[in-house]
Amino acid sequence: MPGSGPAVLVYEVGPRDGLQNEPDHVPTAGKRELVTRLALAGLRRIEVTSFVSPKWIPQLADADELAATLPVFPGVVYSALVPNERGYERFLASGGVQVAATFLSASETHNRKNLNCGIDEQLGHLQRVVERASADGVPVRAYLSTVCGCPYEGEVGIAAVAKLVRRLFELGVAEISLGDTIGVGHPRQVRELVAAVAGEGPLARIALHLHDTYGRALANVQAGYEAGVRTFDASLAGLGGCPYAPGASGNVATEDVCDLFEREGIATGVDLDRLVDASTWLEREVLGRPLPGRVYRARRGARERAQAGEAGA
Amino acid sequence: MPGSGPAVLVYEVGPRDGLQNEPDHVPTAGKRELVTRLALAGLRRIEVTSFVSPKWIPQLADADELAATLPVFPGVVYSALVPNERGYERFLASGGVQVAATFLSASETHNRKNLNCGIDEQLGHLQRVVERASADGVPVRAYLSTVCGCPYEGEVGIAAVAKLVRRLFELGVAEISLGDTIGVGHPRQVRELVAAVAGEGPLARIALHLHDTYGRALANVQAGYEAGVRTFDASLAGLGGCPYAPGASGNVATEDVCDLFEREGIATGVDLDRLVDASTWLEREVLGRPLPGRVYRARRGARERAQAGEAGA
Repeated sequence: MPGSGPAVLVYEVGPRDGLQNEPDHVPTAGKRELVTRLALAGLRRIEVTSFVSPKWIPQLADADELAATLPVFPGVVYSALVPNERGYERFLASGGVQVAATFLSASETHNRKNLNCGIDEQLGHLQRVVERASADGVPVRAYLSTVCGCPYEGEVGIAAVAKLVRRLFELGVAEISLGDTIGVGHPRQVRELVAAVAGEGPLARIALHLHDTYGRALANVQAGYEAGVRTFDASLAGLGGCPYAPGASGNVATEDVCDLFEREGIATGVDLDRLVDASTWLEREVLGRPLPGRVYRARRGARERAQAGEAGA
Repeated sequence: MPGSGPAVLVYEVGPRDGLQNEPDHVPTAGKRELVTRLALAGLRRIEVTSFVSPKWIPQLADADELAATLPVFPGVVYSALVPNERGYERFLASGGVQVAATFLSASETHNRKNLNCGIDEQLGHLQRVVERASADGVPVRAYLSTVCGCPYEGEVGIAAVAKLVRRLFELGVAEISLGDTIGVGHPRQVRELVAAVAGEGPLARIALHLHDTYGRALANVQAGYEAGVRTFDASLAGLGGCPYAPGASGNVATEDVCDLFEREGIATGVDLDRLVDASTWLEREVLGRPLPGRVYRARRGARERAQAGEAGA
């Protein structure tokens, strides 16, 4: 039925981008249950892990095992981070994951600090992964980070971001996720950025990956939607940011994004009650601490008060 | 100098709306220091306390003493909540506070649960306070709560809110602060609400009082600004909402609102570094727990990393 599907796509990155920042190791079975709960809640794109060296991110050392034992749901597409050709080989060998995700920073210094090479050299690494993936019929998602600002360089020019978007599309990536890695973006900036990027390729192939460091993630989601973006990365319960750490920087919470859209009358295809259950399970049975997301706690509180026979206040 | 002043007014309500929800009693000297720090950070409207019965809100039982001993700063205007004529007499007797604030709910059930009377009866109480204040040359601010939804009735119609705004202006209040008491509002709703209210009186006399229960407060601030509102209530560090309680509902943080506007190029007249110092003092020396605001923790973290010689990531 045309027009009856979701109007926006919420792209879940919690199992990868969230868990890679968790101090504790979550067992493979727990990760599998997390992915299962996300799929059953209606999420159709889930980034499950990273084929990075276990020396870098020990939390995701079970990437091969997890990828090979993921549950299969009709319509659910998994992606995993693939930092280089070695990672791509592990990705291929494991089976079970359909999309390879690569990354690049819009800031030269951030790229060097995080990837030990400059932007041009990283584009070269990326090109080899994309060429192999293309030959194998594997779509590639590219994360372009620090698009609203860099922790080392400060401002990042919109023209520089647009130019990198063009180069990534020229390489043949299927989708580009623009990341406000340190959460400094603001609505006017997001609108200007999306307008500039729209000149380089279709917005249907652009996603926004917004962090809530300064509390503006949802304001920026709203601005991005109004500017024409329809794919938004998010992490269950805001997994990946610790609210107690000074300068905590975290993904916007999946429930918070879905509740915003549903309230505005924009269908997400996601069952919020199931998401709240999943976040509660994650908080209470896996991580043992409150997570940054607002909606899961507010909805759970309202539900518990209703069960206790109060209307709430 | 025309055009050189702040473009928006951030109305600080932390000492009243925040502290009345704190489980612990803050000594009068601590409240005075809080107000002083807020004024020195550049805030020009500060709601300092409530002349409600100490039986209702023991945290603010020192209202008379606090009001009588407030520091005087040029250009800083204090307000205090005045629930009835008895409260107004205490307000007058204490001196030191310039604006009397009253309240009313846009939802009949919420009004009855909170004020033990219906909307019409409360409008009668309000009228007597406004008449006395008018005779004394005291401006009245009216809080109209549950404008985006009621915890008992659910939806609250925009037409009903607009009608109450008209009645409040007819009574002679100087300013109306529209409160999203339970934080359920969303940007489209805020735009529609502001458009409806603009037909009843000048937006220069309308403020928005937005709670961050579902993480949408800043998205709603942005929507309200774009719809023409220029006064926004906020609370230092989000004081008044507890992030650990299920269903926590709190004021949007003053720093988060100011940082949003400053980033967008809209002057607030507020010194963010001083606000961060005030929030840190409140967290560490007064309340002893992290508060919900995002910006004070992120900026403090960045500052501490810079002092440690790192650029942060």
